[in-house]
Amino acid sequence: MIKIAVLGYGTVGSGVVEVIEKNRELVNRRATQEMEIKYILDLKDFPGDPYEDKVVHDFNIILEDDEVGIICETMGGTGVAYNFTKSALQRGKSVCTSNKELVARYGPELLETARENNCNYLFEASVGGGIPIIRPLNYSLTAERIESITGILNGTTNYILTKMEREGEDFADALLKAQEKGYAERNPEADVEGYDACRKIAILTSLMTGKNVDSEKIYTEGITGITSADFAYAKKCGYTIKLLARSEMAGSDRVLAMVAPFMVPAEHPIAIVNDVFNAVFVTGNMLGDSMYYGRGAGKLPTASAVVSDVIDCARHQGRVITCFWDKEDMLLADVADVERRFFLRGAQYAKETIINMLDGGRKIELEGRAEDFGYITSPMTERKFDDICNSLGDAILGRIRIL
Amino acid sequence: MIKIAVLGYGTVGSGVVEVIEKNRELVNRRATQEMEIKYILDLKDFPGDPYEDKVVHDFNIILEDDEVGIICETMGGTGVAYNFTKSALQRGKSVCTSNKELVARYGPELLETARENNCNYLFEASVGGGIPIIRPLNYSLTAERIESITGILNGTTNYILTKMEREGEDFADALLKAQEKGYAERNPEADVEGYDACRKIAILTSLMTGKNVDSEKIYTEGITGITSADFAYAKKCGYTIKLLARSEMAGSDRVLAMVAPFMVPAEHPIAIVNDVFNAVFVTGNMLGDSMYYGRGAGKLPTASAVVSDVIDCARHQGRVITCFWDKEDMLLADVADVERRFFLRGAQYAKETIINMLDGGRKIELEGRAEDFGYITSPMTERKFDDICNSLGDAILGRIRIL
Repeated sequence: MIKIAVLGYGTVGSGVVEVIEKNRELVNRRATQEMEIKYILDLKDFPGDPYEDKVVHDFNIILEDDEVGIICETMGGTGVAYNFTKSALQRGKSVCTSNKELVARYGPELLETARENNCNYLFEASVGGGIPIIRPLNYSLTAERIESITGILNGTTNYILTKMEREGEDFADALLKAQEKGYAERNPEADVEGYDACRKIAILTSLMTGKNVDSEKIYTEGITGITSADFAYAKKCGYTIKLLARSEMAGSDRVLAMVAPFMVPAEHPIAIVNDVFNAVFVTGNMLGDSMYYGRGAGKLPTASAVVSDVIDCARHQGRVITCFWDKEDMLLADVADVERRFFLRGAQYAKETIINMLDGGRKIELEGRAEDFGYITSPMTERKFDDICNSLGDAILGRIRIL
Repeated sequence: MIKIAVLGYGTVGSGVVEVIEKNRELVNRRATQEMEIKYILDLKDFPGDPYEDKVVHDFNIILEDDEVGIICETMGGTGVAYNFTKSALQRGKSVCTSNKELVARYGPELLETARENNCNYLFEASVGGGIPIIRPLNYSLTAERIESITGILNGTTNYILTKMEREGEDFADALLKAQEKGYAERNPEADVEGYDACRKIAILTSLMTGKNVDSEKIYTEGITGITSADFAYAKKCGYTIKLLARSEMAGSDRVLAMVAPFMVPAEHPIAIVNDVFNAVFVTGNMLGDSMYYGRGAGKLPTASAVVSDVIDCARHQGRVITCFWDKEDMLLADVADVERRFFLRGAQYAKETIINMLDGGRKIELEGRAEDFGYITSPMTERKFDDICNSLGDAILGRIRIL
């Protein structure tokens, strides 16, 4: 019998309780022992809730209770959550979390604390919600040198982009719909500016390289500048537009990590990932391409991933599960050095100038658009493309990288 | 240091050697110790091969060598491979295999032998080649009651169907091309009749239910009856045609397992799985849908999965990795009882009779086809649809289930 404490009785925390309750028999069987939720830590009381008698307000009750072997941290944030996680691990209690902010910021430190105390810090739910991706990277793709990871890691922005593509909506309208549906927060910054995806690709890139990737050093660009006109041109060329979180090895000792909107060929497997779905596309040197697809957010999918971690902890009590994520910083390549093709939307009045400067690409014209034109460049470094765009000033109406 | 023996120096066996060689540093690190190939068992000699000095012809040399801790069985078949696997496990040597035939037939017995001898029998490469699917089912989706699994599990037939769809070819021509490219065997029966996919879905269904599913009891239908005309009608209705290996829970104690061509909506994630790629689409009661996509065959992808098993064995020496697959037989539901929609291609001369009998569906007509017409039925049991088709005899030119 393993006793569990859940920290934070919000969306994911109550989901964890629901998954363990609904799939009780199965979860116990797979954990190879009985599991029981003993405490739920929250600031609030929950009168009438079937678990109301388990709610406590003082973390020390949990920390001091030797019966508690596994803690689910579903609070979020990097303040109290850090303190609770750290002290739980120091007591030899395993922690399973959905808190990507905390994992991205303190991952290697907390993993080390867990190792030192013969317990585990698991975070399958921190990336891709319910999609198994942390465990496949740590346990399955172990014979591979991973060459790149390309993810659609944020459901909110993917929903907005899908709406824009399918219904020709502009960003602001699609955002409003996402907010009405509860897919976007009232303050959508963390999602639409790419910060959420950035933390997640930092975690995946750290696992891919075995070294630490600081999310704050990752080049991050959101989707607020994408317009319905961009989608019209993308469609004409057989592309869609996705917010990609991407890492690729740049030589043997550097990784290029970034979050930005990309034009993706319509026939690429990741192009079919729509609405709030997420996917992670991984390229290894032996396996080639593989993809992991599913619900990247939501109460039960995320909780399911947390509970799968709880089961893994139960199966490995007193044993440390292998995870390579050193404290040493991974070197990041400069985005400006990368050579690729770019899409550009330019003002009609500057068409000749622009095309002359971007010699060698391909012009795209759409019927009924008098004000702008599209252009797909030949491969060039981002630095060179930047310079050209800067010199053209207001004549450049939009620009998107091409995958 | 762990010493490894490879049984069978064919495509997959030589791939295993190549993966361990090429990714040596990384593989050793992830296995948390050095790995070395000590023996390669084969009937032939390989003069000039860099591993020629490791080749032996007598399995007993491997069996009697206490240094050998892990064996890769990449021979195939259920005769000698069974004997070697069984006796290795009885000696406490872990076995990692790509041999789906052996796993489908003797899985629960060999798992039990491994458990009794404190070692492991792992078979990630037996389904979906390099795609991690066995481990996600066993380690990741553990909080889920799996409701269904839908797989494209055979690369040869998927290549043929993709060719037929894209180039309007008939089955025979597409098969010939697959044979020329080395994607299909000279005797293609195991692939095109669905037997290979059947063994794989038997393995996945056993892991999904925890009980044993006998592949010989699974309803299996191949793709030899699919024509270019079927694809033309499918396209007209927004479908493609895929050979699906599918299992779904039918009540709490039965599973419906089958292999058959299905019409799949073009917007379904599995519809974009083309050429020799495989995918497994899993629906759980908490997570909802998830999909695992990649190379389902080929030397290095398959070998990569075998080596990931080797690494897992190295990490778990002397410890049994949890896997639920009992000897008890899982009850199978009768395919005839299932209600679904069907596509039918009928002879023009019998159009009125057919449509009258299939009241409630939808007629599809294609320009330039004088000899036949298409029809999509309303939902009905397979038994009823069979009866109607049988009563119509030669007037039924083709029939395909709809997903």
